[in-house]
Amino acid sequence: MNLKNLSKSDTIIAPATAPGMGAIAVIRISGPESISITDKFFHSFKKGKKLSSVKTHTANFGEIKNGDLVIDEVLVNVFHDGKSFTGEETVEISCHGSTYITQTIIQLFVDAQIRPADAGEFTMRAYRNGKFDLSQAEAVADLIHSTSKASSQLALSQLKGGVGSEIEKLREKLLNFASLIELELDFSEEDVEFADRTDFINLVKSIQALIEKLMTSFALGNAIKNGVPVAIVGAPNVGKSTLLNALLEEDRAIVSEIAGTTRDTIEDELNIEGITYRFIDTAGIRKTEDIIENKGIEKTFQKMDIARVIIQVFDVTATTPLEIEKRAESLKSKYPTQELLIVLNKVDLIQKANGANTSDAKRNELNDMLGERDLSLTFNWKLNTKGVTFIPISAKSDKGISKIKSELTKLIDLGKLNTGDIIISNARHYNSLKEANESLTNALTALETGLPSDLLAIDIRAALHALGSITGQITTEDLLRNIFGKFCIGK
Amino acid sequence: MNLKNLSKSDTIIAPATAPGMGAIAVIRISGPESISITDKFFHSFKKGKKLSSVKTHTANFGEIKNGDLVIDEVLVNVFHDGKSFTGEETVEISCHGSTYITQTIIQLFVDAQIRPADAGEFTMRAYRNGKFDLSQAEAVADLIHSTSKASSQLALSQLKGGVGSEIEKLREKLLNFASLIELELDFSEEDVEFADRTDFINLVKSIQALIEKLMTSFALGNAIKNGVPVAIVGAPNVGKSTLLNALLEEDRAIVSEIAGTTRDTIEDELNIEGITYRFIDTAGIRKTEDIIENKGIEKTFQKMDIARVIIQVFDVTATTPLEIEKRAESLKSKYPTQELLIVLNKVDLIQKANGANTSDAKRNELNDMLGERDLSLTFNWKLNTKGVTFIPISAKSDKGISKIKSELTKLIDLGKLNTGDIIISNARHYNSLKEANESLTNALTALETGLPSDLLAIDIRAALHALGSITGQITTEDLLRNIFGKFCIGK
Repeated sequence: MNLKNLSKSDTIIAPATAPGMGAIAVIRISGPESISITDKFFHSFKKGKKLSSVKTHTANFGEIKNGDLVIDEVLVNVFHDGKSFTGEETVEISCHGSTYITQTIIQLFVDAQIRPADAGEFTMRAYRNGKFDLSQAEAVADLIHSTSKASSQLALSQLKGGVGSEIEKLREKLLNFASLIELELDFSEEDVEFADRTDFINLVKSIQALIEKLMTSFALGNAIKNGVPVAIVGAPNVGKSTLLNALLEEDRAIVSEIAGTTRDTIEDELNIEGITYRFIDTAGIRKTEDIIENKGIEKTFQKMDIARVIIQVFDVTATTPLEIEKRAESLKSKYPTQELLIVLNKVDLIQKANGANTSDAKRNELNDMLGERDLSLTFNWKLNTKGVTFIPISAKSDKGISKIKSELTKLIDLGKLNTGDIIISNARHYNSLKEANESLTNALTALETGLPSDLLAIDIRAALHALGSITGQITTEDLLRNIFGKFCIGK
Repeated sequence: MNLKNLSKSDTIIAPATAPGMGAIAVIRISGPESISITDKFFHSFKKGKKLSSVKTHTANFGEIKNGDLVIDEVLVNVFHDGKSFTGEETVEISCHGSTYITQTIIQLFVDAQIRPADAGEFTMRAYRNGKFDLSQAEAVADLIHSTSKASSQLALSQLKGGVGSEIEKLREKLLNFASLIELELDFSEEDVEFADRTDFINLVKSIQALIEKLMTSFALGNAIKNGVPVAIVGAPNVGKSTLLNALLEEDRAIVSEIAGTTRDTIEDELNIEGITYRFIDTAGIRKTEDIIENKGIEKTFQKMDIARVIIQVFDVTATTPLEIEKRAESLKSKYPTQELLIVLNKVDLIQKANGANTSDAKRNELNDMLGERDLSLTFNWKLNTKGVTFIPISAKSDKGISKIKSELTKLIDLGKLNTGDIIISNARHYNSLKEANESLTNALTALETGLPSDLLAIDIRAALHALGSITGQITTEDLLRNIFGKFCIGK
């Protein structure tokens, strides 16, 4: 976003729908001249009807013309000043969904001095016109980018102002006390204390507890919003692709009924119970075994570093329990914070070899492990490495796959989404909360060590500033540019 | 399109905007239950407000909910029965432009027994409900696919019913006479002639003249609609890519001001004065010189066969005038119907060699050839092959490029677009006109040789049938399936 456009309230235009061919496309125009300029080009099929005289929230059928030349037949939605998404006078033109036509209409308005909107400028205007706070504006972008039930729910709850009002509560508590401290500064020569230090210590501690709770929720919020990165690694031919296909296939069918909707799905994303698991491309690390042994290839480690889950696949017919445990321990020591799943593939082949001399009890135990009691697999390797989960499967015959899924879903407690608790999903909010928390810790130190009021005031101001930047009560142009610049054009 | 859905009037749903991420996406629902079903999921922000009680052509703000779960905040346009594009009760839901949200909302309706629409089903319903004739329905698809001013203008004029009403005029004239012939058949035993044969001969001739005029317009209409295929061929390093870039570059800048609009442009399409020139990929025929000499490679010939223009590029520093003329004649004999341009590249290098001993008159003549008088090129090769145009250029320094463009635009007489003459751009219409014309020729023979009325009647019926199939007054299910099946989903 151009700095110069941040505070403008001229009339702007942009396509509002995705580019490409469709039955219709929508062009959005917002600002004081929206209706009067559109009236220059719009010719209603009802003779003499002008958009300037129609009611708000009406759809009007007619033509867009450049002089005598008809560009398209269109439907024009009119929203009066104060009654639209942006809070400004707005016109939405639904034209035929050809890129050429959309472009021609926009060019017509641009030639008439309507400015092409910057990225996110419509939403920024809505924010500036008090339609919602900054965290809600960010939720609009999140909603558009949402790819799962959980992420759309999270964005919607943020759009409804959940985060903002929670932060405001914290801020108000602090503000009340801060004003007393500021008062002390005004009377600093008289050495009075208006604010009760013990009350304040308790207040700061309670605010910190709330901030920390919000910060903790970010792990969940971030997983919901951005998905959970999962690295599937393993030597060639252990069955990584078969496993990925087995994981993906079931969840594909759900959406395939509706034509035209699956074009955007990405090959290696899996949605389980509303959470997106993003499988990190490990095409480049085919020789994973070598890599783990010789720490040489930095790139592979980077990929495994950013994963929240590492699934290491073994072919049980080509390795030994001892080798696997050695790897498991090595993995655990290298990736202590990641969830480690060791998937033992091709157990059906082992069964054939030693299935005869396995007790029924053992068989049942293994079936339990596989999560499917009717599975008559036998697999008697005893593997035990602390912090590592072993899952015997047969990717080829789809056995044990549900066990992997249930391990993945265990990581994410979606129950919290329904408790009404506020969940932070925005890294900017998380960082602001962290800053506020640090400032409050400093304030606490100042209070407990009896530092003078002016130092205390600095810390409190910093905390208030950090909290205020979340909702946009305190903003800088840089911040706004940063936030809205990431939006798509037309939003 | 499913055969079973052709005559249904149940309620259907589909996304109406292009797939992918945008600020908003629009979902269209059409049929008798559109409003009542939407009311089940839509909750207005004005308490108690139901869509069933709002006026037609209103935009209504609220939420789409699945039970208690909010799926999105939406704007719902309501169109009453008989007042929409399809002619049916219609609802358009503008939701946030995430594929996930669009899909979730559609799934919600599908679960409530609303059927996902077939390709083209909305437009087919509009046709069936008498909103327009078949040629107009086809124009809707043409408009969406239009990529240039001329093609969108052509589609719009067809959408306004130009083709249909012209055909209807022809058909009515014929119909009047046909009824007299049919009457003769009823009284065939009495050997009467109700229809004046001389009048009829004149009528048929005048109708044929009009049909032939329409058929002639197809060359222009097809070029406007589908673009003009141009093959640029030549040996490696003669400057084909430089030429293509020089041709493309100027016309790129026009649209680049509007962000997000150029994503759909295709590398090798060029729009000159509203006509799209499609440069056929000749990457596979790098050794064009060899190919022309040895007729071996069928594929290359196929590509040159479908081109309407062949641009053969030569490097004048690497060949002789004699060689070029030999090629020109060979090209002309192999491609007698194509427009042949021989582009002589790198003439600036020749200039350096022999520029000194060239007269001013010669220089001016060459500058005229290049279309730029200030160009001080000298190039004194005398090339002359009938039916082939030679254009000296310097692709590197952009000289002579405008001359190529003016040669390309000469092919297409866009003036006809503005005379109000009907231009046929649809191959189906062209074929129907051809059929009608043939039947009328047969009828004429029957009239002139005095064949009996029953044979004459067969020819006239065939002509009426062919003409009626253009506007859809005579249709078969196959025809409808064929036409609407090519539409995109949601249209």
